[in-house]
Amino acid sequence: MKNILILLFLFFTMAAQAQNKVVLVIHGGAGTITPENMTPELERIYRQKLSEALEKGYAVLERGGTSLEAVTTAIQIMEESPLFNAGRGAVFTHAGRNELDASIMDGKTGQAGAVAGVTTIKSPILAAQAVMQKSPHVMLTGTGAEEFAREQGLEQVENSYFFDQRRFDQLKRLQQLEQGKDKEGSLKDPEWGLFEGKKFGTVGAVALDSQGNLAAGTSTGGMTNKRWGRVGDSPIIGAGTYANNQSCAVSATGHGEFFIRNVVAYDVAARMKYQGLSLQNAAEEVVMKTLKEQGGEGGIIAVDNKGNIAMPFNTSGMYRGYMNQKGKPQVFIFQEKK
Amino acid sequence: MKNILILLFLFFTMAAQAQNKVVLVIHGGAGTITPENMTPELERIYRQKLSEALEKGYAVLERGGTSLEAVTTAIQIMEESPLFNAGRGAVFTHAGRNELDASIMDGKTGQAGAVAGVTTIKSPILAAQAVMQKSPHVMLTGTGAEEFAREQGLEQVENSYFFDQRRFDQLKRLQQLEQGKDKEGSLKDPEWGLFEGKKFGTVGAVALDSQGNLAAGTSTGGMTNKRWGRVGDSPIIGAGTYANNQSCAVSATGHGEFFIRNVVAYDVAARMKYQGLSLQNAAEEVVMKTLKEQGGEGGIIAVDNKGNIAMPFNTSGMYRGYMNQKGKPQVFIFQEKK
Repeated sequence: MKNILILLFLFFTMAAQAQNKVVLVIHGGAGTITPENMTPELERIYRQKLSEALEKGYAVLERGGTSLEAVTTAIQIMEESPLFNAGRGAVFTHAGRNELDASIMDGKTGQAGAVAGVTTIKSPILAAQAVMQKSPHVMLTGTGAEEFAREQGLEQVENSYFFDQRRFDQLKRLQQLEQGKDKEGSLKDPEWGLFEGKKFGTVGAVALDSQGNLAAGTSTGGMTNKRWGRVGDSPIIGAGTYANNQSCAVSATGHGEFFIRNVVAYDVAARMKYQGLSLQNAAEEVVMKTLKEQGGEGGIIAVDNKGNIAMPFNTSGMYRGYMNQKGKPQVFIFQEKK
Repeated sequence: MKNILILLFLFFTMAAQAQNKVVLVIHGGAGTITPENMTPELERIYRQKLSEALEKGYAVLERGGTSLEAVTTAIQIMEESPLFNAGRGAVFTHAGRNELDASIMDGKTGQAGAVAGVTTIKSPILAAQAVMQKSPHVMLTGTGAEEFAREQGLEQVENSYFFDQRRFDQLKRLQQLEQGKDKEGSLKDPEWGLFEGKKFGTVGAVALDSQGNLAAGTSTGGMTNKRWGRVGDSPIIGAGTYANNQSCAVSATGHGEFFIRNVVAYDVAARMKYQGLSLQNAAEEVVMKTLKEQGGEGGIIAVDNKGNIAMPFNTSGMYRGYMNQKGKPQVFIFQEKK
């Protein structure tokens, strides 16, 4: 009898622990990111900022906060850093300004929100969350989305808030290159290499909270030199962001057109639901096969409802990390040695 | 020997016929469309216009044209008619103007194009096609998309081209109702019922051509009284439109937010690919189960690479039809008697 009680105690303890497993995964963009393109000092700064985003987001989960809150907390930190192509530090459009996109999805309710082409909202991910929670819509665009954000009391900034000299120089250099004025040289210097690594520097986060609820969010400045109100996969539910408690939460980064056409984020969930694949296998199939075969560069981060993590990418590097234990943010930049 | 030759001849004839099976399916929107809401005269006009779109699109397929061309031909006819909520006849936004969305996908190449929130492009579906064929992007929005369309030489119109007095009256009536000035009455009169039926009056087409290639396209004015640059599922690849030669071509119409969150068009293809469902079963699962359980009103049209057709909807009616035999457009509006 005593043994049975001990077993029961152990069973419920383990069940409770399983219930309470919380996980946060983030990315800060994928691309041509190699040790040769990176100074030790820059690498340190990136690792520090990624760790900060993980620790602050994880703290939310640890105190019983929702996966949604953890996702927005981590993304806001990356939006506010000029290191990433989102919020402050976003790349410039052809016309020399910053147009931002973001989306978020709640895996518990299936609700979602997105903004595209906004220029005066300080935190696009908070705007996406407001669309989800305070409007009957999923996707708002341009000045209309800004009007909505204003009505919701979200912080407004001048477009110049997002200005970053390094990004602006990248735009000018790319435009010179396009015009054939600088055919040699630029592509070889380390700064250009870093730019190459940054053109897909979208940020994103996915989380599993103590209630077993999943959430995913993505925020970006899009592609340097983009024109014509171009929108990539980041604000598109199913392409750049997807979450459902029954399967997984996914945030993508990469060459957005490929991610839209292949409905990347939802395809990972569909392969789990309909094919019975594990998160890792589903994520690998989509990134390392479907996308890679088409030349669709980029990667995804994903977490399933059991706390499993996947972070596949088909580029030379992806700023990424996860945290599922207190005090231990795990941060990676380059490909890991197998 | 003679018998074998006859059998071989029959075999190749049948194979050639199977190869050459061409199909066009269209929709003109789903909603509260009932015989009580419809005058016989209006019904005749709708049937006539749907038949015209089917016949002209089918003629393209019959002379060996592509599924893409058949889709744009059929959609253009519905865009130009004030009967449908797309192009001329689009519903009005809260600010009293017309903002149009469209998308198209080529099942052979996996390429896709979309425009959202455009106000001066005569045919949004042709603009979506130009994005697919003439830009490196998938989705262009707002004035940027209009600039691109102008550069491509697509026909421009004043926003007033899309004006339709009946639609404008609907907007005013809905706004009065919102303000509580007209709580009684309006909802009961037939004109209001027709409006109800029209709020989701998106148009779309899917086709299978003689080369075995699939295509899908969708065009809409969105929701009456929409605000804040709201975008629905129609311009979103995976939600409102999807095509892939390996599975099917799908175009959706309905309450767009539900269609985005459920990645409806791609989900039909995913259920075929990963679950091995037939087109009919996959389409029914998504529309009559997933969407219906959530209260997501609307329907889809779909065709697979064998020429099978599905047209499920969970509303009282959907303007729809198909054509797979010369001279025989099949047009439906209400629920069919089982």
